[in-house]
Amino acid sequence: MTQTTNALQTLDTPAVLVDLDVVRRNIARFQSYADQIGMAVRPHIKTHKLPQIALMQLEAGAVGITCQKISEAEAMVAADSRLSDVLITYNILGAEKLAHLRDLAGRVRLTVVADNAVVIDGLSAAFADATAPLRVLVECNTGADRCGVATPQEAAALACRIAGAPGLQFQGLMTYPPANGAAAVQAFMTQAKALIEASGLTVTVVSSGGTPSMMQAGDAPVATEYRPGTYAYNDRSLVARGACDWDDCALTVLATVVSVPSANRAIIDAGSKALTSDLLGLTGYGHVLGRPDIVIDQLSEEHGRLISSGPIRLAVGDKLRIVPNHACVVSNLFDVVQVLEAGVAVATWPVVARGKVT
Amino acid sequence: MTQTTNALQTLDTPAVLVDLDVVRRNIARFQSYADQIGMAVRPHIKTHKLPQIALMQLEAGAVGITCQKISEAEAMVAADSRLSDVLITYNILGAEKLAHLRDLAGRVRLTVVADNAVVIDGLSAAFADATAPLRVLVECNTGADRCGVATPQEAAALACRIAGAPGLQFQGLMTYPPANGAAAVQAFMTQAKALIEASGLTVTVVSSGGTPSMMQAGDAPVATEYRPGTYAYNDRSLVARGACDWDDCALTVLATVVSVPSANRAIIDAGSKALTSDLLGLTGYGHVLGRPDIVIDQLSEEHGRLISSGPIRLAVGDKLRIVPNHACVVSNLFDVVQVLEAGVAVATWPVVARGKVT
Repeated sequence: MTQTTNALQTLDTPAVLVDLDVVRRNIARFQSYADQIGMAVRPHIKTHKLPQIALMQLEAGAVGITCQKISEAEAMVAADSRLSDVLITYNILGAEKLAHLRDLAGRVRLTVVADNAVVIDGLSAAFADATAPLRVLVECNTGADRCGVATPQEAAALACRIAGAPGLQFQGLMTYPPANGAAAVQAFMTQAKALIEASGLTVTVVSSGGTPSMMQAGDAPVATEYRPGTYAYNDRSLVARGACDWDDCALTVLATVVSVPSANRAIIDAGSKALTSDLLGLTGYGHVLGRPDIVIDQLSEEHGRLISSGPIRLAVGDKLRIVPNHACVVSNLFDVVQVLEAGVAVATWPVVARGKVT
Repeated sequence: MTQTTNALQTLDTPAVLVDLDVVRRNIARFQSYADQIGMAVRPHIKTHKLPQIALMQLEAGAVGITCQKISEAEAMVAADSRLSDVLITYNILGAEKLAHLRDLAGRVRLTVVADNAVVIDGLSAAFADATAPLRVLVECNTGADRCGVATPQEAAALACRIAGAPGLQFQGLMTYPPANGAAAVQAFMTQAKALIEASGLTVTVVSSGGTPSMMQAGDAPVATEYRPGTYAYNDRSLVARGACDWDDCALTVLATVVSVPSANRAIIDAGSKALTSDLLGLTGYGHVLGRPDIVIDQLSEEHGRLISSGPIRLAVGDKLRIVPNHACVVSNLFDVVQVLEAGVAVATWPVVARGKVT
């Protein structure tokens, strides 16, 4: 056991550890690639929900941040005024949300998305008498089959609707592509852009995203910006896809062995309230660093069950570091994270954008 | 659409709705059964994490509450001093947790569990000079294969260790049984109790639990108390097991349709940050009330994807009520819940024991 590991023995568990050295390296790696291909970076803060890391991303060269919900954006902006350029990649609806959006637009350079006329008309009604128009991107479905218009023709029709709507300014196109979706993005966006430009509008921004395929972002050069999220932390799902290695995983859950009830089974104090039930197609609920023989085969809310193919070789009181399947959802479960520098816990940061669902 | 449903249209989404009329009925139903079979009820608060509902449980006849973590117990006790009898069904380890435990024991009637010598020795060291001994139950594995000693003989050995440990008082036995585990509980606990009593100790408490099989609690009459949790709310997993019906589900997630991108697909603003990825063996991530044709087939953090076997028949802006697969984990994701009386939202309650992982 190393000195570094010993320094973590005194932390109460379960705890989320964020290794800032790894975060910096992860941020620098993608920024360098994006700089090389001439694409702007607008990281999604859902992964860390921390203004401190958003600032590290801006300092590395990011043009702004991406949030999924208004309440997330409000929390980030309130925490640091340098977070002043925000894209919210979500259809925003309803009086309460629109009032918050209008308020936020007065404080930062704000862009939102829409994939249907109801959302566009709601945004327009809310911003019709605003001092400055709200920038709107049309969300396009390039194969992920979540939100987004289905065809370039529909994208062009919504672009015109936005351009003609009081209080709104058509800004471009946005998509959350499927894995390995660069070719689909390139095809859809090129056609949509041509149709829209033929109508006399300018497509200033074409925004794509997704960590799994981010190092192939250059294969869709129609995009002007990219929104990676998980890349700042990485996780077991990305190791499984070959996108990174365990050493690139900045977020780990520190857990304590609370019971060793049989020769090949141990129980830790990290269950679904710490690791979440996200499987992302994997078997088991996380990777115990240094113990590839162990599968976390079952979670209840406060218990994680570890099964080894051989003897479990763990004792009650042992501490383990676990790379979760999905880092972003873990960030949403903890009020604070423990920040490591050179392997030593140096600070406790509140997760200011945790639990922001609206 | 009913008047009741209309009254919910103004709530911002996603939101958790808790129907108190249903909660009261659920609590009364099990309390009545437990009274009939002469078994004490000690509900697990993990399901609701709300002192208000814990008080409803006590008023109905519960003898105290169950918590899984010290921080949960602290939050509940701090919220209402009438929550003064607490069982923490978890192996407690480590200096920080033991200091909190010692402090909590000075304020309420506290009982904990242990399934190994390391935990017992740690508890004893922390309570050796306390003014009153800490009550300890031995946790037994009756087939769930999580924590717990494997045999009645081991239970008896730990009972003796507790009885001989300074600062501790052996109080009895505890198990979290598998589904339909009444026979296993009866066999294990009867044998363990006999062994322990043969050594001259008294088994005051035999504590069992679990909502799925709670109406068969009487099949393990060796138990003196029962710890149901989810019964207060119920959820889709319990409907699937035949334990209740949709009308018995007190917790629903109110969500808004934000996109209808194709004829059979709609997207709601409730994803894994609202519904969680817990499947509990089911297909899909929740039940849309009134729409058995819809499957919630995919969640990302802020998007839920709804697929219908026929036309989706939803419009952007529609609000839906969803019964989640697992109610307890949903409670852990929201800072507040909206409380309904007679179908109308009458209050917003903070979820005071949310996010208490330590």
